Amino acid sequence: MTSIEPVVLSVDGHGGDHGEQVVVAACLEALRADSSLEIRVCGIPDRLEKAVTAGSGPQNSRQSIRDRLTVVPATDILAMDVKPVAVLRRGQGSSMWQAFDEVASGRAQACVSGGNTGAMMALGVKLLGLLEGIQRPALMAHFPSATGYVAMLDLGANLNVSAAQLVQFAVMGAVAFDESRKILGENADPAIGLLNVGHEDGKGHELVKSAHGMLKALPLNYTGFIEGHDLFAGKVDVAVCDGFSGNLVLKSSEGLARMLFQELGKAFKSTFRARMGAALASQSIGKLVERFDPAAHNGAPLLGLNGVAVKSHGGADCRAMTRAILEAGQQARRKVPGRIEALIREYRLEAKE
Amino acid sequence: MTSIEPVVLSVDGHGGDHGEQVVVAACLEALRADSSLEIRVCGIPDRLEKAVTAGSGPQNSRQSIRDRLTVVPATDILAMDVKPVAVLRRGQGSSMWQAFDEVASGRAQACVSGGNTGAMMALGVKLLGLLEGIQRPALMAHFPSATGYVAMLDLGANLNVSAAQLVQFAVMGAVAFDESRKILGENADPAIGLLNVGHEDGKGHELVKSAHGMLKALPLNYTGFIEGHDLFAGKVDVAVCDGFSGNLVLKSSEGLARMLFQELGKAFKSTFRARMGAALASQSIGKLVERFDPAAHNGAPLLGLNGVAVKSHGGADCRAMTRAILEAGQQARRKVPGRIEALIREYRLEAKE
Repeated sequence: MTSIEPVVLSVDGHGGDHGEQVVVAACLEALRADSSLEIRVCGIPDRLEKAVTAGSGPQNSRQSIRDRLTVVPATDILAMDVKPVAVLRRGQGSSMWQAFDEVASGRAQACVSGGNTGAMMALGVKLLGLLEGIQRPALMAHFPSATGYVAMLDLGANLNVSAAQLVQFAVMGAVAFDESRKILGENADPAIGLLNVGHEDGKGHELVKSAHGMLKALPLNYTGFIEGHDLFAGKVDVAVCDGFSGNLVLKSSEGLARMLFQELGKAFKSTFRARMGAALASQSIGKLVERFDPAAHNGAPLLGLNGVAVKSHGGADCRAMTRAILEAGQQARRKVPGRIEALIREYRLEAKE
Repeated sequence: MTSIEPVVLSVDGHGGDHGEQVVVAACLEALRADSSLEIRVCGIPDRLEKAVTAGSGPQNSRQSIRDRLTVVPATDILAMDVKPVAVLRRGQGSSMWQAFDEVASGRAQACVSGGNTGAMMALGVKLLGLLEGIQRPALMAHFPSATGYVAMLDLGANLNVSAAQLVQFAVMGAVAFDESRKILGENADPAIGLLNVGHEDGKGHELVKSAHGMLKALPLNYTGFIEGHDLFAGKVDVAVCDGFSGNLVLKSSEGLARMLFQELGKAFKSTFRARMGAALASQSIGKLVERFDPAAHNGAPLLGLNGVAVKSHGGADCRAMTRAILEAGQQARRKVPGRIEALIREYRLEAKE
C-alpha cells in the first residue's frame, strides 16, 4: 500500500470476546497493510508482550512493523457487561480508558475498541467531549448495497432520540460517509435519507415527521423519507434512524445474510449436480460471499465526539479487527470530527439545541 | 388438495397496484387449489365479470370453480393513498368496505385486501370491532428462518405502542402462529421473543423493559429478549416488536434478500465456468430462491379484530395474492379471533387495560 499521511492510533488491547491475541495480531496486520500507521496498544503489559511475540510470525517479523507498535500499560481490563456508570467511577487505568486517554492527550489521533458500547460512549463523552451542537454520539457503519455502499446511523447508541438528534445524525453521516465507497453517482454531496414506514410526507410518527421538516430546511442533499427496502437498493448514501430500530435492522440483516449463505452452502451440497456446479462457480460465488461478509465491514465510528473513536464488533476475529483499525485510520485522516463541527456551525445548529 | 372444512372468503377486488385482473386470477387459482373454499369478490361488477372471463383459461374453466366465485357489487374503489378518516366518512360502497361488511354480516368468515393498511385498520375496527382486551390491531407475517418459520408482529399497524400493547401482540402471535409451519421442536406452545438491542434484563428502553416484566409473569412460553440476528436463526416462533421497527426490519430484510439473489444471479453470469456451474446447480438453487421469495409468504393477518382480515402486499402478483387468500382460509379455519379472545380472558388481560 502506498504511504500516505502518518497516523497514530490507540487500540484497546482487550476489547472483545477473544482477548489480546486477536487484537495484537490485527494490530500487526494493520501495520503491515498501512506503512504510515503507528499503533499504541493499551493493556496488561506482559499479556500484550506475549501476544506480540506469538503474533510476530515470518510475515510480521520485520523490524519496521514491530517498531511501529508500542505497548501502553494498563492496570485493568473492563468486563464486556460493565455498566457505563461503573466505568466512569472505577474505570481509570483500564485498557479502554487508556485508549481514549491517548486520543484525549494528543498522543494518538484515533482509538479503537471492541468493548462494551455503553462504556465507550461514557468514556468518549468524558475524555474526548462532545462536539458543539451534538447532544449524543451515534454509531455508524457502512454496508454493501446494490450500487456500492450505504452508511447507516444510529446503530444502537441512542434508543430514544429527539427530532433534533436525528438531524444531528444526518449532518454527522454526511461528513463521515466515505465518498471513496460510492460507486455510482457523480454528486459530491452524499444523498441522505430518513428511514420511515412510507415515502409520503404524512407517513410515520411525529418524531420522524418533525425531523423530516427540519432536514428539508437544511442545505444537505436530503432526499426525504426512505423505506427499509431502499436501504440495500442503493437509493441513498446515508440512512438515518433511531438507535433502537437501527440496531434491529443491522443485526437482522447480518443474521439474514448469514442464514442465506448457509442455506446456499447447503443447496450446493444437496445433489451431485449441485456439487459439480458449486465447484465450477466457486470463484464467482466466493467473491460475492466476501463482499457481504460482515467482517469486511467491521469498524463503526462513534460520531459526535471531539476525536475519532471506532467500535469493533465484540466477536471480531483478526480480519474484522484489522478492518476496524484501518477504518479508524481513515476517519482520522479525513478529519471527520473537525468537519462535523464546521458543518454544524455552518448550519447554525449549535444554537438550536 | 383434500377437502376440508368449507370456508367462505370475501376478497377486495381492487386491492393493490394491479387492479381486478390479478385479484380475480388469484381467486380462481385459490378456488382450484382448495375445493372447499368459496369466494365473494367485491368490486365494480362489469370490471370483475370481464376479469373472470379473461381469467377463466382452460385450467379454471371447470364449472365447479366458477360456481364457487360470486361477484358482490361495489360502487367505488379506494385509492391506494386514501386517508383512513376519509374511508370512514365516504368509503361506504367501496370494494374494501364491502369485503369487510361481508365478514361483519356473517356472509363470509374472512376477508382479504391488498389496499391501504390504514384504511383496512379503520374499516376493521369500525365494521368488525376489536376483541375485548385488545387496544389496537397488529399485522403479523411468517418468514422463513434457519429452522422453519418465524412470525413477526407488529409490521407497521402501530408506530407508537405501549408495553401493554406489546403484551397483547405476544398473546395474539402465540395464537395466530401457524404450528404447521414449525419444523423443529416438539413443544406445543410457540416460543415468543421480544425484540431488543440486547439479551440481558437491563438492556433496552423503558418500553421493552416494562413489557418484558409483564410477559415473564404470564403463562406464555416467553423466552425473553431476542436480538435482530436471532430472528432468522430460528430461536423463537414469534417475534414481537413495535410497528415502526418491525416495518423497517421487514422491508430491509425483503430488500436485502432480493439484492442478494440478484447479486447471486450476476455472479452466476460473470464467467463461463460460473454459467456452467449455475446450469448444474440450478435445481437446488431454484428451490432456495423459491423458499425465500416474499411472494411465497404474502398474506399478513390483521390480528385483534373480531373477524379474520388478511392484508396482501400492494404490489402482489397472482401467485402472491393466491397465497394471501389461502392464508385467510387457514386463519378462518383455525378460528384465530375466538382463540385470541379466550386467551386474553384466561390471562385476565381484558381487565388490565
